[in-house]
Amino acid sequence: MKIKYELIKNNDKARHGILHTNYGSYETPMFMPVGTLANVKTLVPEELKEVNSAVILSNTYHLWLRPGEDIVQKAGGLHKFMNWDGPILTDSGGFQVFSLAKNKKKDITEEGVYFKSHIDGRNLLLTPEKSIEIQNKLDSDIAMSFDECPPASASHEYLKNSLERTLRWAKRGKEVHSNENQSLFGIVQGGPYEDLRKESAIETVKIGFDGYSIGGVANDGESKEDMYKAIDYSIPYLPEDKPRYLMGVGEPIDILEGVQRGIDMFDCVLPTRIARHGNAFTHSGKINLKNLKFREDFTPIEDTCDCYTCKNYTKAYIRHLLVANEQLAGRLLSIHNIRFLIKLTEDIRKSIDEDKFIEFKNNFIINYKKSSK
Amino acid sequence: MKIKYELIKNNDKARHGILHTNYGSYETPMFMPVGTLANVKTLVPEELKEVNSAVILSNTYHLWLRPGEDIVQKAGGLHKFMNWDGPILTDSGGFQVFSLAKNKKKDITEEGVYFKSHIDGRNLLLTPEKSIEIQNKLDSDIAMSFDECPPASASHEYLKNSLERTLRWAKRGKEVHSNENQSLFGIVQGGPYEDLRKESAIETVKIGFDGYSIGGVANDGESKEDMYKAIDYSIPYLPEDKPRYLMGVGEPIDILEGVQRGIDMFDCVLPTRIARHGNAFTHSGKINLKNLKFREDFTPIEDTCDCYTCKNYTKAYIRHLLVANEQLAGRLLSIHNIRFLIKLTEDIRKSIDEDKFIEFKNNFIINYKKSSK
Repeated sequence: MKIKYELIKNNDKARHGILHTNYGSYETPMFMPVGTLANVKTLVPEELKEVNSAVILSNTYHLWLRPGEDIVQKAGGLHKFMNWDGPILTDSGGFQVFSLAKNKKKDITEEGVYFKSHIDGRNLLLTPEKSIEIQNKLDSDIAMSFDECPPASASHEYLKNSLERTLRWAKRGKEVHSNENQSLFGIVQGGPYEDLRKESAIETVKIGFDGYSIGGVANDGESKEDMYKAIDYSIPYLPEDKPRYLMGVGEPIDILEGVQRGIDMFDCVLPTRIARHGNAFTHSGKINLKNLKFREDFTPIEDTCDCYTCKNYTKAYIRHLLVANEQLAGRLLSIHNIRFLIKLTEDIRKSIDEDKFIEFKNNFIINYKKSSK
Repeated sequence: MKIKYELIKNNDKARHGILHTNYGSYETPMFMPVGTLANVKTLVPEELKEVNSAVILSNTYHLWLRPGEDIVQKAGGLHKFMNWDGPILTDSGGFQVFSLAKNKKKDITEEGVYFKSHIDGRNLLLTPEKSIEIQNKLDSDIAMSFDECPPASASHEYLKNSLERTLRWAKRGKEVHSNENQSLFGIVQGGPYEDLRKESAIETVKIGFDGYSIGGVANDGESKEDMYKAIDYSIPYLPEDKPRYLMGVGEPIDILEGVQRGIDMFDCVLPTRIARHGNAFTHSGKINLKNLKFREDFTPIEDTCDCYTCKNYTKAYIRHLLVANEQLAGRLLSIHNIRFLIKLTEDIRKSIDEDKFIEFKNNFIINYKKSSK
């Protein structure tokens, strides 16, 4: 089936909804952990369920290169391959082509993007049709349209041409998309410009998708202000009855800012990436567990946290694992960090139900910024 | 309490027994997973329980250096520090001092061993008293006497002097050991020489310990034949009512050979170490999951295996994780490999009960050697 979005309650633009999927119904706003290479790094599906994960994300570009979409298809699709019986969203590969491709040399044509593999440098071509074909074989529940992700520094003129090509690509992708069990999202581009976001949003909605994403907001060099503008300028033109997804965003404050502007879905590698470097989210900001001050701190990362890590391990123990380069540290911190963001979305939904979202947001941010970092 | 060994059934020299510990009673022969730095690499205690682990091992030398025994003591001991509520055996640090110490430059004196830290090169002295003191602070259930681990190439004369010093060290260690909740094991040395093993065993038993270990069998360069001799020459002088522990041995065939000669306990980093390199134990030998032939092999490592990994993942998936350098591969393979060795000891116990140990052993080895490797 196609996903369905059901609005339960709104508090100004902030929305509490339900996303009905092939693998159950889940509340929004939601944070989606990222399983780049068909696994959320160091974790197994049971751990993702335990932190109350709903949709997880996987990367088309990475799976195309390794192990290849045909192998995933032969395995019975991505769910079976990675043993995940919840919903999966795959991105289009566009972001990685523009950010990872070897030496960043690439040739953007009407047909698609020619670039070199970041693994072995071989020449590759990703087109809107190819992206959809790969995502079909991966058999994700939500596929994304292939889009250009222009740099934050791109000019108005460049962005206008780019978003119009992205619209043509979106149409081509939709034309070849025929999987009735896979939803397809369109992506709004246009940088920080009101006229471009408006044009992109209106035209993308005209093509007609099962959900809409706001892209081009997690690029290197993008300012927070530009991100908020991108959302503010896009949301008014998106239908109320479809989910809105802010791609690549996972900083707690950004999630709150996104929700305030009407976003329903977020994803980011942040919780697992910072975990591998010893960082943990707390309600008073991020902390680095390698810090000497935690050497004899026999308390959990957060007393109030209900995650497996906080229920069973101390900061002193996690610091020890980090200092000794034990991989278990990254695993324990990943569990905590993902749970932190998912719990944040749970608290957000509650605050929307109580018409107290802004109060909740302001309190959260005051505490979070107390961080000495 | 001190541990107690209870013999249930023997089949010639092979013994099926029960080890009663501070943290429950467990059957022997047993394989003990190694948690070098207060964690069995990549795994959490729940996973160790799920594969039916009993005693786990942790390394005094490593914990002395990082995080330091005082921090573990302040945490409430090793069990609490690492969240493991089963029995723990700590080694003496001797093996690491002789194998790991920086540049292998060390000065063995009657007092103890002067050497350089393998982490930062600082000068350290480990003595029999210090080893016991550290193990007391770690609060393991079973402590080991500090011994010299001479190289496989050592002469008869060297080994005789060495084992006699090890006996003096064992006495000194026992004298300072006063923890009523911690058992203390003696270690038999003497290389592959019958007269030396006999002398070492008789004199070690005279000192009187809660269990006896056969040491010097897992050194670089040690031959299998020398290992079997070391056991054969030591066992006759060890008391029936105490457990016998073969240190550092975990190859399936070596476990079988050890059991046949009267060994009750084994430990080894092998299952986790080979896991990180992509290797898995199977009943027809070790396989490397990176092998191209597993690319589209959508079956588990072993159909008959009851471990979490085999119940949920295919060889193709694990191969993909390995090729993509995902840490989850090592975690999944560690679970399988530890379960494999623990299941082997379970099958061994059953065969002893049925007076069919030799038949079981021979069948296992015939299949295991089928490996094309």
